[in-house]
Amino acid sequence: MDQVSPAALSATEVARRIREGLLTSEELVQACLERIRQVEPQVQAWTFLDEEHALAQARVADERKRSGAEIGPLHGVPVGLKDIIDTADMPTENGCALHKGRTPRADAAVAAMLRAAGAIILGKTVTTECAYFSPGKTRNPHNPEHTPGGSSSGSAAAVAASMVPLALGSQTAGSTIRPAAYCGVYGFKPTHGLIPRTGILQLSRTLDHVGLFARGIDDLALLAEEVAGHHDRDPDTRPRARVPFRQVSSEEPPLEPMFAYIKTPHWQRVDADAKAAFAELQEELGAQVEEVELLPSAADAWDWHGTILASEMASSFEREWLEGRDRLSPQLQSLIERGREVRAVDYQRALRCLPDVVDSFDELFMDRYDAILTPAALGTAPKGLGATGDPVFCTPWTLFGMPAITLPLLKGENGLPLGVQLVGRREFDARLMRTARWLVSRTAS
Amino acid sequence: MDQVSPAALSATEVARRIREGLLTSEELVQACLERIRQVEPQVQAWTFLDEEHALAQARVADERKRSGAEIGPLHGVPVGLKDIIDTADMPTENGCALHKGRTPRADAAVAAMLRAAGAIILGKTVTTECAYFSPGKTRNPHNPEHTPGGSSSGSAAAVAASMVPLALGSQTAGSTIRPAAYCGVYGFKPTHGLIPRTGILQLSRTLDHVGLFARGIDDLALLAEEVAGHHDRDPDTRPRARVPFRQVSSEEPPLEPMFAYIKTPHWQRVDADAKAAFAELQEELGAQVEEVELLPSAADAWDWHGTILASEMASSFEREWLEGRDRLSPQLQSLIERGREVRAVDYQRALRCLPDVVDSFDELFMDRYDAILTPAALGTAPKGLGATGDPVFCTPWTLFGMPAITLPLLKGENGLPLGVQLVGRREFDARLMRTARWLVSRTAS
Repeated sequence: MDQVSPAALSATEVARRIREGLLTSEELVQACLERIRQVEPQVQAWTFLDEEHALAQARVADERKRSGAEIGPLHGVPVGLKDIIDTADMPTENGCALHKGRTPRADAAVAAMLRAAGAIILGKTVTTECAYFSPGKTRNPHNPEHTPGGSSSGSAAAVAASMVPLALGSQTAGSTIRPAAYCGVYGFKPTHGLIPRTGILQLSRTLDHVGLFARGIDDLALLAEEVAGHHDRDPDTRPRARVPFRQVSSEEPPLEPMFAYIKTPHWQRVDADAKAAFAELQEELGAQVEEVELLPSAADAWDWHGTILASEMASSFEREWLEGRDRLSPQLQSLIERGREVRAVDYQRALRCLPDVVDSFDELFMDRYDAILTPAALGTAPKGLGATGDPVFCTPWTLFGMPAITLPLLKGENGLPLGVQLVGRREFDARLMRTARWLVSRTAS
Repeated sequence: MDQVSPAALSATEVARRIREGLLTSEELVQACLERIRQVEPQVQAWTFLDEEHALAQARVADERKRSGAEIGPLHGVPVGLKDIIDTADMPTENGCALHKGRTPRADAAVAAMLRAAGAIILGKTVTTECAYFSPGKTRNPHNPEHTPGGSSSGSAAAVAASMVPLALGSQTAGSTIRPAAYCGVYGFKPTHGLIPRTGILQLSRTLDHVGLFARGIDDLALLAEEVAGHHDRDPDTRPRARVPFRQVSSEEPPLEPMFAYIKTPHWQRVDADAKAAFAELQEELGAQVEEVELLPSAADAWDWHGTILASEMASSFEREWLEGRDRLSPQLQSLIERGREVRAVDYQRALRCLPDVVDSFDELFMDRYDAILTPAALGTAPKGLGATGDPVFCTPWTLFGMPAITLPLLKGENGLPLGVQLVGRREFDARLMRTARWLVSRTAS
């Protein structure tokens, strides 16, 4: 990669340069488009990209800057949006054969928030079918024979390949943390309800989260601060003060953080090289990491997640099922079939168990630990493009709505990136970023 | 009734007298207890009442008043609580054989809010079994051969018989509006989520509401202002500014209100004398009332309500079902049996339909009307104590979470009270009270 291309810079840096008049948004978008022309044939991260429309947005931003008008924190900075996030000016096809040619009339809440902050919506990134498991065309930028992970495949790959500094995706099982880890970028899944999902394809009200991709923690904080907030039509969001992600995440922790290393009952499935890499990390952190068993009350998390996911997706995709089930992938068909048989009492029992477990995790954090440390996935990105990998290490944190971040700090034997996942207390998202930044600088030293 | 007994006065009036030192809480509670000794043998409104404990609370309140400390708006005023509302100092048995002798450790949120406002928790009022349909011992104060309605039977009857000026109940179908109408008092079911349900027996998160009983609108406003609010453990409440019920409800409407008279598809089941009384009311209101068809999108409300109620109650009472179903009434058993068979997709489909209907009702209110006018029940309290009457005229407003108030403005041929129900726009509870007050004074003139 051309080391001087603005496409390779962080969002924080390009936002600063634009603000200070050292770079125009048009130059930046041109650099991103140039990079895309170079690597997209191999990576295939985008499902919609209109170069002229992107440049037109950039020129409007530059015009505004020149006019002296107030500009937002993301002024002129391009962002990629997973193609389940509605955009009024681009198609949004949800990776679904039945939604081909779908053109929403309105922006999703997060798209509108990004535009309000000055961002350029560069284009739409590849999603698996309906953000479930059936893969799209995207390949891992580190090795095209490996999956980028899913379901936010294109967002992770586009950021990893420096096609765009920031992207949004989603996570209902492991759809942000896993592809971010496989592609070697920073991924962030906030507390449930922190970022509104209005205008985004709904899989599961209980489990759906907006996810963030960037190449550094500053950039995640910059992006998170603009998309967190309340929206009337997302009943899981609530009015709250602006979360000062940038400020809190850049502070030094008052004490050196303590990590609860939770291997989970699925540890035996983790690849040997990943186990070894985590053992080294554990050693490096010394007394600051302690191995902690997963709370017994959380042991059924994977089952509860399965019940809720199947029944809520069966409900969300009822129309698609009734009108064109044969055009859905066999994987999605089989999930919906299972979901349609779930009884309401079993579904509600799974939901009912969640608050007490969340309380127990709160105690874990209050007692002793700043973050849970755990793998982001079973190992590096698996070979092959027929599947997107296993979300098993993300499932419980998604279910409990706890904030999670993956950091590209380790590597597998094959040289592919391995993600270190930190999980924080609900509602303490900015503090999780602060802890993550500490870990990044600690392991860099 | 002794016209000079403070038990017969409004809560607003006794609160004023206590505040001004013209009455002590002990005198007031003594008067209420005297009234209870007189009429309770016939009415049977209470399931727990400890005279000494009530008087002790009153003496503490009087002591505080004498000390010159700040006092709350309900200082020294007795309130009855339906026996599904937890109290740390009294049993809470939920009208359920399996909960006999249950003594909660903590007050329900509303009980704590009442105490914080200075109220005396006089005792616990009779509920039907688990606030469903199987009747308790209470009789209608206007005629002991007639049902008081349910499920908040004791709260409605105790207020109607001047045993206590204020009481709380609940509504999941028609459990506040119907007994208030049958007993000839004012009943108020607020917007869903306005009053926290923490510490109250849960039947259905979607449908449960706290309900208020009083003998006038001032008193409803006084009580509502103290119990509305956010509580962490009721996820349907949210932080908000204090609702100025007393101020708004006492203002004159800027324009004479317009009423949308909605007879609903169940009008043919309404008793002939009730139909005649409503026809007179309609005539009296002249151009200020217009007959409006129930929105077509709301036609399935009764079915959706049935699906949600059965499946959520089956979930809420799963433990009782597993551990002692034979000690539940046949009615409750049969509901739970049905609820256990509901599929999660059918349950979720019912939930999914609600927001759009609520939006449509919002438009009705924005376009032209201040309130919906509709009967509170099919007629006056039915004869017999084996059933508590039909909630069919309350069901949709409960389901849509819209605020509803019943006013004892009419009478049936048998001399028993007939309730006029007004239904307002969600979140506009205080304004509904203002409209209700207008109607009360208009019909009084």
